[in-house]
Amino acid sequence: MRLVNGVLAESLSLSDRAIQFGDGVFRTMKVTAGQIEFWSQHYGKLASDCARLGMTAPSEATLLADIAQLQPIDHSIKIIVTRGESVRGYVTPGDIQPNRIVQKAALPVYPATIYTEGAVLRICKTRASWQPALAGVKHLNRLENVLARREWTDPNIFDGLMLDRDGYVVEGVMSNVFALIDGVWCTPTLNDAGVAGVYRDMLLLLNGFSDICTKEAKLTLAELYSASAIFVCNSLAACVPVRQIEQHRWPVDNEWMQHIQHILGQNK
Amino acid sequence: MRLVNGVLAESLSLSDRAIQFGDGVFRTMKVTAGQIEFWSQHYGKLASDCARLGMTAPSEATLLADIAQLQPIDHSIKIIVTRGESVRGYVTPGDIQPNRIVQKAALPVYPATIYTEGAVLRICKTRASWQPALAGVKHLNRLENVLARREWTDPNIFDGLMLDRDGYVVEGVMSNVFALIDGVWCTPTLNDAGVAGVYRDMLLLLNGFSDICTKEAKLTLAELYSASAIFVCNSLAACVPVRQIEQHRWPVDNEWMQHIQHILGQNK
Repeated sequence: MRLVNGVLAESLSLSDRAIQFGDGVFRTMKVTAGQIEFWSQHYGKLASDCARLGMTAPSEATLLADIAQLQPIDHSIKIIVTRGESVRGYVTPGDIQPNRIVQKAALPVYPATIYTEGAVLRICKTRASWQPALAGVKHLNRLENVLARREWTDPNIFDGLMLDRDGYVVEGVMSNVFALIDGVWCTPTLNDAGVAGVYRDMLLLLNGFSDICTKEAKLTLAELYSASAIFVCNSLAACVPVRQIEQHRWPVDNEWMQHIQHILGQNK
Repeated sequence: MRLVNGVLAESLSLSDRAIQFGDGVFRTMKVTAGQIEFWSQHYGKLASDCARLGMTAPSEATLLADIAQLQPIDHSIKIIVTRGESVRGYVTPGDIQPNRIVQKAALPVYPATIYTEGAVLRICKTRASWQPALAGVKHLNRLENVLARREWTDPNIFDGLMLDRDGYVVEGVMSNVFALIDGVWCTPTLNDAGVAGVYRDMLLLLNGFSDICTKEAKLTLAELYSASAIFVCNSLAACVPVRQIEQHRWPVDNEWMQHIQHILGQNK
Protein backbone atom coordinates (compact mmCIF):
# COMPACT_ATOMS: atom_id res chain seq x y z
CA MET A 1 0.00 0.00 0.00
CA ARG A 2 1.63 3.20 -1.18
CA LEU A 3 1.09 6.92 -1.38
CA VAL A 4 2.66 9.46 -3.70
CA ASN A 5 2.29 12.96 -2.26
CA GLY A 6 -0.45 11.69 0.04
CA VAL A 7 -2.54 10.00 -2.66
CA LEU A 8 -2.86 6.23 -3.11
CA ALA A 9 -0.75 5.30 -6.12
CA GLU A 10 1.06 2.39 -7.72
CA SER A 11 3.33 4.35 -10.04
CA LEU A 12 5.58 7.40 -10.31
CA SER A 13 5.96 9.91 -13.14
CA LEU A 14 8.67 8.94 -15.61
CA SER A 15 9.96 12.52 -15.27
CA ASP A 16 10.86 11.90 -11.63
CA ARG A 17 14.58 12.26 -11.07
CA ALA A 18 14.60 9.18 -8.80
CA ILE A 19 14.15 7.13 -11.99
CA GLN A 20 16.54 9.16 -14.13
CA PHE A 21 19.37 9.66 -11.61
CA GLY A 22 18.51 8.10 -8.24
CA ASP A 23 18.12 11.73 -7.14
CA GLY A 24 16.61 11.42 -3.67
CA VAL A 25 16.84 9.93 -0.18
CA PHE A 26 14.94 7.31 1.80
CA ARG A 27 14.32 5.89 5.24
CA THR A 28 13.02 2.54 6.44
CA MET A 29 11.45 2.28 9.88
CA LYS A 30 9.63 -0.23 12.02
CA VAL A 31 6.09 0.16 13.30
CA THR A 32 5.18 -1.95 16.34
CA ALA A 33 1.60 -2.03 17.63
CA GLY A 34 0.91 1.11 15.64
CA GLN A 35 3.88 3.05 17.07
CA ILE A 36 6.70 4.19 14.78
CA GLU A 37 9.99 3.32 16.44
CA PHE A 38 12.42 6.24 16.80
CA TRP A 39 10.35 8.57 14.59
CA SER A 40 12.11 11.75 15.76
CA GLN A 41 15.49 10.29 14.91
CA HIS A 42 14.28 9.10 11.50
CA TYR A 43 12.73 12.44 10.66
CA GLY A 44 15.83 14.31 11.82
CA LYS A 45 18.05 12.13 9.65
CA LEU A 46 15.71 12.47 6.65
CA ALA A 47 15.79 16.25 6.98
CA SER A 48 19.59 16.36 7.28
CA ASP A 49 20.04 13.94 4.35
CA CYS A 50 17.77 16.14 2.21
CA ALA A 51 19.83 19.18 3.20
CA ARG A 52 23.05 17.37 2.20
CA LEU A 53 21.62 17.01 -1.33
CA GLY A 54 20.25 20.57 -1.46
CA MET A 55 16.62 19.43 -1.08
CA THR A 56 13.96 20.46 1.44
CA ALA A 57 12.29 17.61 3.32
CA PRO A 58 8.48 17.49 3.58
CA SER A 59 7.27 18.67 7.00
CA GLU A 60 7.06 16.21 9.85
CA ALA A 61 3.27 16.73 10.03
CA THR A 62 2.88 15.94 6.31
CA LEU A 63 4.80 12.68 6.60
CA LEU A 64 3.04 11.65 9.80
CA ALA A 65 -0.32 12.26 8.11
CA ASP A 66 0.78 10.06 5.18
CA ILE A 67 1.83 7.28 7.55
CA ALA A 68 -1.43 7.56 9.52
CA GLN A 69 -3.37 7.21 6.28
CA LEU A 70 -1.65 3.84 5.71
CA GLN A 71 -2.69 2.64 9.20
CA PRO A 72 0.40 0.52 9.91
CA ILE A 73 0.18 -1.86 12.88
CA ASP A 74 3.17 -4.22 12.79
CA HIS A 75 4.75 -3.16 9.50
CA SER A 76 7.72 -1.51 7.89
CA ILE A 77 7.31 2.00 6.55
CA LYS A 78 9.61 3.24 3.80
CA ILE A 79 9.73 6.93 2.95
CA ILE A 80 11.36 8.12 -0.27
CA VAL A 81 11.80 11.81 -0.97
CA THR A 82 12.86 12.60 -4.52
CA ARG A 83 14.11 15.94 -5.82
CA GLY A 84 11.07 16.02 -8.11
CA GLU A 85 10.41 16.06 -11.84
CA SER A 86 12.40 17.59 -14.66
CA VAL A 87 13.11 17.20 -18.35
CA ARG A 88 16.17 15.32 -19.70
CA GLY A 89 19.54 16.50 -18.36
CA TYR A 90 21.29 16.92 -15.03
CA VAL A 91 20.32 20.59 -14.50
CA THR A 92 17.96 21.07 -11.54
CA PRO A 93 15.14 23.48 -12.43
CA GLY A 94 14.82 26.34 -9.94
CA ASP A 95 11.13 25.71 -9.26
CA ILE A 96 11.36 21.94 -8.74
CA GLN A 97 9.11 20.42 -6.04
CA PRO A 98 10.05 17.21 -4.18
CA ASN A 99 7.86 14.13 -4.54
CA ARG A 100 7.29 11.97 -1.47
CA ILE A 101 6.52 8.27 -1.55
CA VAL A 102 5.37 6.48 1.59
CA GLN A 103 4.91 2.73 1.47
CA LYS A 104 3.75 0.15 4.00
CA ALA A 105 5.01 -3.42 3.79
CA ALA A 106 5.12 -6.57 5.91
CA LEU A 107 8.00 -6.75 8.36
CA PRO A 108 10.82 -9.05 7.24
CA VAL A 109 10.83 -12.34 9.13
CA TYR A 110 14.24 -13.17 10.60
CA PRO A 111 15.02 -16.56 12.15
CA ALA A 112 14.78 -16.19 15.96
CA THR A 113 18.17 -17.90 16.28
CA ILE A 114 20.01 -14.83 14.98
CA TYR A 115 19.19 -13.14 18.29
CA THR A 116 19.87 -16.15 20.56
CA GLU A 117 22.75 -17.88 18.77
CA GLY A 118 24.06 -15.02 16.64
CA ALA A 119 24.15 -14.31 12.93
CA VAL A 120 26.63 -15.34 10.25
CA LEU A 121 28.18 -12.65 8.03
CA ARG A 122 30.43 -12.77 5.00
CA ILE A 123 32.91 -10.34 3.46
CA CYS A 124 31.75 -8.94 0.11
CA LYS A 125 34.01 -8.61 -2.91
CA THR A 126 32.09 -5.49 -3.93
CA ARG A 127 33.72 -2.54 -2.21
CA ALA A 128 31.96 0.56 -0.88
CA SER A 129 32.50 3.67 -3.03
CA TRP A 130 34.76 6.48 -1.93
CA GLN A 131 32.47 9.52 -2.20
CA PRO A 132 32.63 12.07 0.64
CA ALA A 133 29.86 14.19 -0.97
CA LEU A 134 27.40 11.35 -0.32
CA ALA A 135 28.95 9.42 2.58
CA GLY A 136 26.58 8.88 5.50
CA VAL A 137 23.51 9.89 3.46
CA LYS A 138 20.77 7.28 2.91
CA HIS A 139 20.36 8.18 -0.76
CA LEU A 140 18.82 6.32 -3.68
CA ASN A 141 22.13 5.43 -5.41
CA ARG A 142 22.31 1.94 -3.98
CA LEU A 143 23.66 -0.09 -6.88
CA GLU A 144 26.74 -1.15 -4.93
CA ASN A 145 24.52 -2.61 -2.21
CA VAL A 146 22.51 -4.43 -4.88
CA LEU A 147 25.68 -5.88 -6.44
CA ALA A 148 27.10 -6.83 -3.04
CA ARG A 149 23.82 -8.55 -2.08
CA ARG A 150 23.95 -10.54 -5.32
CA GLU A 151 27.19 -12.20 -4.16
CA TRP A 152 25.38 -14.77 -1.99
CA THR A 153 22.14 -16.76 -1.93
CA ASP A 154 22.74 -18.87 1.22
CA PRO A 155 19.78 -18.00 3.51
CA ASN A 156 21.96 -18.73 6.55
CA ILE A 157 24.06 -15.64 5.83
CA PHE A 158 22.39 -12.64 7.42
CA ASP A 159 24.46 -9.89 5.85
CA GLY A 160 27.73 -9.16 4.04
CA LEU A 161 30.32 -6.63 5.18
CA MET A 162 31.68 -4.15 2.67
CA LEU A 163 35.21 -2.73 2.79
CA ASP A 164 36.44 0.52 1.27
CA ARG A 165 39.19 1.00 -1.32
CA ASP A 166 41.87 0.81 1.36
CA GLY A 167 40.45 -2.30 3.01
CA TYR A 168 38.81 -0.60 6.00
CA VAL A 169 35.46 -2.01 7.13
CA VAL A 170 32.56 0.30 6.21
CA GLU A 171 29.23 -1.42 6.91
CA GLY A 172 26.95 -4.34 6.13
CA VAL A 173 24.94 -4.32 2.90
CA MET A 174 21.84 -3.55 5.01
CA SER A 175 23.28 -2.77 8.45
CA ASN A 176 25.90 -0.89 10.44
CA VAL A 177 28.47 -2.81 12.43
CA PHE A 178 29.90 -2.45 15.96
CA ALA A 179 32.93 -4.32 17.32
CA LEU A 180 33.90 -4.50 21.00
CA ILE A 181 37.60 -3.61 21.18
CA ASP A 182 39.27 -2.92 24.53
CA GLY A 183 35.87 -2.43 26.15
CA VAL A 184 34.62 0.09 23.56
CA TRP A 185 32.01 -0.64 20.90
CA CYS A 186 33.72 0.76 17.77
CA THR A 187 31.84 1.47 14.55
CA PRO A 188 33.52 2.55 11.30
CA THR A 189 33.79 6.28 10.56
CA LEU A 190 31.62 7.08 7.56
CA ASN A 191 33.26 10.25 6.25
CA ASP A 192 34.09 8.83 2.83
CA ALA A 193 31.65 5.93 2.31
CA GLY A 194 28.63 4.16 3.72
CA VAL A 195 25.23 4.94 5.17
CA ALA A 196 24.78 6.15 8.75
CA GLY A 197 21.66 4.43 10.12
CA VAL A 198 19.54 5.71 12.97
CA TYR A 199 20.52 2.79 15.21
CA ARG A 200 24.19 3.63 14.68
CA ASP A 201 23.54 7.30 15.48
CA MET A 202 21.68 6.38 18.67
CA LEU A 203 24.32 3.93 19.81
CA LEU A 204 26.99 6.62 19.37
CA LEU A 205 24.84 8.98 21.46
CA LEU A 206 24.62 6.33 24.20
CA ASN A 207 28.38 6.61 24.80
CA GLY A 208 29.02 7.03 28.53
CA PHE A 209 25.44 6.15 29.44
CA SER A 210 24.82 3.13 31.69
CA ASP A 211 28.36 1.69 31.27
CA ILE A 212 28.13 1.62 27.46
CA CYS A 213 31.15 2.99 25.59
CA THR A 214 30.83 3.61 21.85
CA LYS A 215 32.95 5.52 19.33
CA GLU A 216 33.68 5.90 15.65
CA ALA A 217 37.01 4.50 14.48
CA LYS A 218 38.81 3.41 11.33
CA LEU A 219 38.64 -0.36 11.51
CA THR A 220 40.74 -2.81 9.51
CA LEU A 221 39.51 -6.33 8.92
CA ALA A 222 42.27 -7.57 11.25
CA GLU A 223 41.03 -5.25 13.99
CA LEU A 224 37.47 -6.42 13.43
CA TYR A 225 38.56 -10.05 13.71
CA SER A 226 40.41 -9.23 16.95
CA ALA A 227 37.21 -7.86 18.56
CA SER A 228 35.81 -9.70 21.57
CA ALA A 229 32.21 -9.31 20.30
CA ILE A 230 30.48 -7.96 17.20
CA PHE A 231 26.94 -6.95 16.35
CA VAL A 232 25.18 -5.43 13.36
CA CYS A 233 22.10 -3.22 13.51
CA ASN A 234 19.40 -1.63 11.42
CA SER A 235 15.95 -0.23 12.05
CA LEU A 236 14.04 -3.41 11.18
CA ALA A 237 16.29 -6.07 12.76
CA ALA A 238 17.51 -3.89 15.69
CA CYS A 239 20.79 -5.21 17.20
CA VAL A 240 21.87 -8.65 15.99
CA PRO A 241 24.86 -10.37 17.62
CA VAL A 242 27.38 -11.94 15.22
CA ARG A 243 28.74 -15.41 15.82
CA GLN A 244 30.70 -15.94 12.62
CA ILE A 245 32.35 -13.95 9.80
CA GLU A 246 33.95 -16.17 7.17
CA GLN A 247 36.07 -18.64 9.24
CA HIS A 248 36.22 -16.43 12.37
CA ARG A 249 33.91 -17.20 15.30
CA TRP A 250 32.77 -15.40 18.43
CA PRO A 251 30.90 -16.55 21.53
CA VAL A 252 27.56 -14.77 21.66
CA ASP A 253 26.92 -12.92 24.90
CA ASN A 254 23.28 -11.96 24.85
CA GLU A 255 23.47 -9.97 28.04
CA TRP A 256 25.29 -7.17 26.24
CA MET A 257 22.79 -7.14 23.41
CA GLN A 258 19.84 -7.21 25.77
CA HIS A 259 21.34 -4.45 27.87
CA ILE A 260 21.88 -2.21 24.83
CA GLN A 261 18.51 -3.05 23.33
CA HIS A 262 16.82 -2.40 26.67
CA ILE A 263 18.40 1.05 26.98
CA LEU A 264 17.53 1.88 23.36
CA GLY A 265 13.98 0.70 24.07
CA GLN A 266 13.70 3.05 27.02
CA ASN A 267 14.54 5.92 24.71
CA LYS A 268 12.05 5.12 21.98
CA MET B 1 6.64 10.84 -25.62
CA ARG B 2 7.57 7.70 -23.75
CA LEU B 3 7.11 3.97 -23.83
CA VAL B 4 7.40 1.46 -21.00
CA ASN B 5 7.91 -2.04 -22.41
CA GLY B 6 6.64 -0.85 -25.79
CA VAL B 7 3.43 0.77 -24.48
CA LEU B 8 2.81 4.51 -24.29
CA ALA B 9 3.12 5.48 -20.63
CA GLU B 10 3.79 8.44 -18.38
CA SER B 11 4.66 6.53 -15.22
CA LEU B 12 6.57 3.55 -13.85
CA SER B 13 5.58 1.02 -11.18
CA LEU B 14 6.69 2.06 -7.69
CA SER B 15 8.08 -1.48 -7.32
CA ASP B 16 10.65 -0.79 -10.02
CA ARG B 17 14.18 -1.03 -8.67
CA ALA B 18 15.21 2.07 -10.65
CA ILE B 19 13.18 4.08 -8.12
CA GLN B 20 14.25 2.09 -5.06
CA PHE B 21 17.98 1.71 -5.84
CA GLY B 22 18.84 3.27 -9.20
CA ASP B 23 19.17 -0.36 -10.33
CA GLY B 24 19.59 -0.06 -14.09
CA VAL B 25 21.46 1.46 -17.01
CA PHE B 26 20.72 4.04 -19.69
CA ARG B 27 21.85 5.47 -23.00
CA THR B 28 21.20 8.78 -24.72
CA MET B 29 21.54 9.01 -28.49
CA LYS B 30 20.95 11.49 -31.27
CA VAL B 31 18.54 11.00 -34.14
CA THR B 32 19.19 13.10 -37.24
CA ALA B 33 16.73 13.09 -40.14
CA GLY B 34 15.23 9.91 -38.73
CA GLN B 35 18.58 8.09 -38.49
CA ILE B 36 19.92 7.00 -35.09
CA GLU B 37 23.56 7.98 -34.89
CA PHE B 38 25.94 5.15 -33.97
CA TRP B 39 23.14 2.73 -33.07
CA SER B 40 25.33 -0.38 -33.18
CA GLN B 41 27.80 1.17 -30.77
CA HIS B 42 25.01 2.30 -28.44
CA TYR B 43 23.37 -1.10 -28.45
CA GLY B 44 26.69 -2.87 -27.89
CA LYS B 45 27.47 -0.62 -24.93
CA LEU B 46 23.96 -1.06 -23.49
CA ALA B 47 24.31 -4.84 -23.68
CA SER B 48 27.74 -4.82 -22.07
CA ASP B 49 26.62 -2.41 -19.34
CA CYS B 50 23.64 -4.70 -18.58
CA ALA B 51 26.03 -7.66 -18.38
CA ARG B 52 28.26 -5.75 -15.93
CA LEU B 53 25.26 -5.47 -13.57
CA GLY B 54 24.13 -9.07 -14.12
CA MET B 55 21.13 -8.06 -16.26
CA THR B 56 20.10 -9.13 -19.76
CA ALA B 57 19.49 -6.34 -22.24
CA PRO B 58 16.32 -6.33 -24.37
CA SER B 59 17.01 -7.51 -27.92
CA GLU B 60 18.17 -5.03 -30.53
CA ALA B 61 14.98 -5.66 -32.55
CA THR B 62 12.77 -4.92 -29.54
CA LEU B 63 14.48 -1.61 -28.86
CA LEU B 64 14.51 -0.60 -32.52
CA ALA B 65 10.76 -1.33 -32.72
CA ASP B 66 10.20 0.86 -29.66
CA ILE B 67 12.20 3.69 -31.21
CA ALA B 68 10.37 3.33 -34.54
CA GLN B 69 7.07 3.60 -32.68
CA LEU B 70 8.16 7.01 -31.37
CA GLN B 71 8.96 8.22 -34.94
CA PRO B 72 11.91 10.44 -34.03
CA ILE B 73 13.14 12.84 -36.73
CA ASP B 74 15.60 15.29 -35.17
CA HIS B 75 15.37 14.24 -31.54
CA SER B 76 17.20 12.68 -28.65
CA ILE B 77 16.29 9.15 -27.64
CA LYS B 78 16.96 7.96 -24.12
CA ILE B 79 16.75 4.26 -23.29
CA ILE B 80 16.60 3.11 -19.67
CA VAL B 81 16.77 -0.59 -18.82
CA THR B 82 15.93 -1.37 -15.19
CA ARG B 83 16.48 -4.66 -13.42
CA GLY B 84 12.71 -4.87 -12.95
CA GLU B 85 10.29 -4.96 -10.04
CA SER B 86 10.66 -6.46 -6.59
CA VAL B 87 9.42 -6.07 -3.03
CA ARG B 88 11.34 -4.12 -0.36
CA GLY B 89 14.98 -5.19 0.18
CA TYR B 90 18.17 -5.53 -1.85
CA VAL B 91 17.71 -9.22 -2.78
CA THR B 92 17.15 -9.73 -6.52
CA PRO B 93 14.32 -12.25 -7.13
CA GLY B 94 15.38 -15.09 -9.43
CA ASP B 95 12.48 -14.56 -11.84
CA ILE B 96 12.84 -10.78 -12.23
CA GLN B 97 12.18 -9.30 -15.68
CA PRO B 98 13.81 -6.07 -16.85
CA ASN B 99 11.65 -3.04 -17.65
CA ARG B 100 12.60 -0.89 -20.61
CA ILE B 101 11.78 2.79 -20.95
CA VAL B 102 12.30 4.56 -24.28
CA GLN B 103 11.71 8.29 -24.43
CA LYS B 104 11.89 10.85 -27.22
CA ALA B 105 12.76 14.46 -26.44
CA ALA B 106 13.81 17.63 -28.25
CA LEU B 107 17.51 17.92 -28.96
CA PRO B 108 19.32 20.30 -26.61
CA VAL B 109 20.17 23.62 -28.27
CA TYR B 110 23.81 24.55 -27.85
CA PRO B 111 25.15 27.98 -28.84
CA ALA B 112 26.86 27.65 -32.25
CA THR B 113 29.89 29.47 -30.86
CA ILE B 114 30.94 26.43 -28.79
CA TYR B 115 31.92 24.75 -32.07
CA THR B 116 33.54 27.79 -33.72
CA GLU B 117 35.10 29.59 -30.75
CA GLY B 118 35.27 26.77 -28.23
CA ALA B 119 33.52 26.02 -24.96
CA VAL B 120 34.32 27.11 -21.41
CA LEU B 121 34.65 24.45 -18.69
CA ARG B 122 35.08 24.62 -14.94
CA ILE B 123 36.56 22.25 -12.36
CA CYS B 124 33.94 20.79 -10.03
CA LYS B 125 34.41 20.51 -6.28
CA THR B 126 32.32 17.31 -6.32
CA ARG B 127 34.69 14.43 -6.98
CA ALA B 128 33.92 11.28 -8.98
CA SER B 129 33.42 8.17 -6.82
CA TRP B 130 36.02 5.45 -6.63
CA GLN B 131 34.01 2.33 -7.51
CA PRO B 132 35.63 -0.19 -9.88
CA ALA B 133 32.50 -2.39 -9.84
CA LEU B 134 30.58 0.38 -11.63
CA ALA B 135 33.32 2.36 -13.40
CA GLY B 136 32.70 2.85 -17.11
CA VAL B 137 29.05 1.74 -16.86
CA LYS B 138 26.33 4.26 -17.76
CA HIS B 139 24.16 3.31 -14.77
CA LEU B 140 21.33 5.10 -13.02
CA ASN B 141 23.30 6.07 -9.88
CA ARG B 142 24.05 9.59 -11.06
CA LEU B 143 23.72 11.63 -7.89
CA GLU B 144 27.32 12.79 -8.07
CA ASN B 145 26.71 14.22 -11.55
CA VAL B 146 23.59 15.95 -10.23
CA LEU B 147 25.53 17.48 -7.33
CA ALA B 148 28.41 18.50 -9.59
CA ARG B 149 25.98 20.12 -12.06
CA ARG B 150 24.43 22.08 -9.19
CA GLU B 151 27.75 23.86 -8.63
CA TRP B 152 27.16 26.39 -11.41
CA THR B 153 24.33 28.28 -13.08
CA ASP B 154 26.36 30.44 -15.53
CA PRO B 155 24.96 29.48 -18.97
CA ASN B 156 28.34 30.30 -20.55
CA ILE B 157 29.90 27.28 -18.85
CA PHE B 158 29.34 24.26 -21.05
CA ASP B 159 30.44 21.55 -18.62
CA GLY B 160 32.39 20.91 -15.44
CA LEU B 161 35.29 18.49 -15.10
CA MET B 162 35.30 16.01 -12.23
CA LEU B 163 38.46 14.71 -10.57
CA ASP B 164 38.88 11.49 -8.61
CA ARG B 165 40.00 11.07 -5.01
CA ASP B 166 43.64 11.38 -6.00
CA GLY B 167 43.13 14.46 -8.16
CA TYR B 168 43.25 12.73 -11.55
CA VAL B 169 40.87 14.04 -14.20
CA VAL B 170 37.96 11.63 -14.84
CA GLU B 171 35.36 13.25 -17.11
CA GLY B 172 32.92 16.08 -17.57
CA VAL B 173 29.55 15.96 -15.78
CA MET B 174 27.94 15.13 -19.15
CA SER B 175 30.94 14.42 -21.41
CA ASN B 176 34.24 12.64 -21.81
CA VAL B 177 37.41 14.67 -22.28
CA PHE B 178 40.40 14.38 -24.64
CA ALA B 179 43.64 16.35 -24.32
CA LEU B 180 46.31 16.62 -27.05
CA ILE B 181 49.62 15.85 -25.35
CA ASP B 182 52.76 15.23 -27.45
CA GLY B 183 50.62 14.65 -30.52
CA VAL B 184 48.36 12.07 -28.88
CA TRP B 185 44.74 12.68 -27.87
CA CYS B 186 44.72 11.32 -24.30
CA THR B 187 41.52 10.51 -22.42
CA PRO B 188 41.39 9.44 -18.75
CA THR B 189 41.38 5.74 -17.95
CA LEU B 190 38.04 4.82 -16.42
CA ASN B 191 38.91 1.70 -14.44
CA ASP B 192 37.89 3.13 -11.07
CA ALA B 193 35.43 5.93 -11.85
CA GLY B 194 33.42 7.63 -14.58
CA VAL B 195 31.23 6.75 -17.54
CA ALA B 196 32.66 5.56 -20.85
CA GLY B 197 30.58 7.19 -23.59
CA VAL B 198 30.20 5.86 -27.12
CA TYR B 199 32.07 8.84 -28.61
CA ARG B 200 35.01 8.11 -26.30
CA ASP B 201 34.96 4.43 -27.31
CA MET B 202 34.91 5.31 -31.00
CA LEU B 203 37.70 7.86 -30.69
CA LEU B 204 39.87 5.26 -28.98
CA LEU B 205 39.12 2.85 -31.84
CA LEU B 206 40.19 5.52 -34.35
CA ASN B 207 43.77 5.37 -33.01
CA GLY B 208 46.15 4.99 -35.91
CA PHE B 209 43.49 5.79 -38.48
CA SER B 210 43.97 8.81 -40.76
CA ASP B 211 46.78 10.35 -38.67
CA ILE B 212 44.69 10.38 -35.47
CA CYS B 213 46.42 9.08 -32.34
CA THR B 214 44.32 8.39 -29.24
CA LYS B 215 44.99 6.56 -26.01
CA GLU B 216 43.80 6.15 -22.42
CA ALA B 217 46.05 7.65 -19.76
CA LYS B 218 46.03 8.75 -16.16
CA LEU B 219 45.85 12.53 -16.42
CA THR B 220 46.59 15.03 -13.65
CA LEU B 221 45.11 18.48 -13.79
CA ALA B 222 48.62 19.86 -14.44
CA GLU B 223 49.00 17.51 -17.43
CA LEU B 224 45.59 18.57 -18.72
CA TYR B 225 46.55 22.23 -18.45
CA SER B 226 49.79 21.50 -20.35
CA ALA B 227 47.85 20.04 -23.32
CA SER B 228 48.07 21.86 -26.65
CA ALA B 229 44.35 21.34 -27.32
CA ILE B 230 41.35 19.91 -25.47
CA PHE B 231 37.90 18.78 -26.49
CA VAL B 232 34.93 17.18 -24.75
CA CYS B 233 32.41 14.87 -26.40
CA ASN B 234 29.08 13.19 -25.90
CA SER B 235 26.43 11.69 -28.15
CA LEU B 236 24.25 14.79 -28.36
CA ALA B 237 26.90 17.53 -28.65
CA ALA B 238 29.49 15.43 -30.57
CA CYS B 239 33.04 16.85 -30.26
CA VAL B 240 33.25 20.32 -28.70
CA PRO B 241 36.61 22.15 -28.65
CA VAL B 242 37.53 23.77 -25.33
CA ARG B 243 38.91 27.31 -25.19
CA GLN B 244 39.00 27.85 -21.44
CA ILE B 245 39.10 25.89 -18.17
CA GLU B 246 39.11 28.14 -15.11
CA GLN B 247 41.88 30.70 -15.86
CA HIS B 248 43.64 28.54 -18.49
CA ARG B 249 43.07 29.26 -22.19
CA TRP B 250 43.71 27.44 -25.47
CA PRO B 251 43.58 28.55 -29.08
CA VAL B 252 40.80 26.67 -30.85
CA ASP B 253 41.89 24.83 -33.97
CA ASN B 254 38.73 23.75 -35.72
CA GLU B 255 40.56 21.81 -38.38
CA TRP B 256 41.33 19.05 -35.90
CA MET B 257 37.77 18.90 -34.69
CA GLN B 258 36.36 18.91 -38.19
CA HIS B 259 38.79 16.22 -39.25
CA ILE B 260 37.86 13.96 -36.32
CA GLN B 261 34.15 14.68 -36.70
CA HIS B 262 34.38 14.01 -40.44
CA ILE B 263 36.00 10.61 -39.90
CA LEU B 264 33.49 9.72 -37.18
CA GLY B 265 30.71 10.79 -39.56
CA GLN B 266 32.02 8.47 -42.26
CA ASN B 267 31.69 5.59 -39.80
CA LYS B 268 28.16 6.28 -38.66
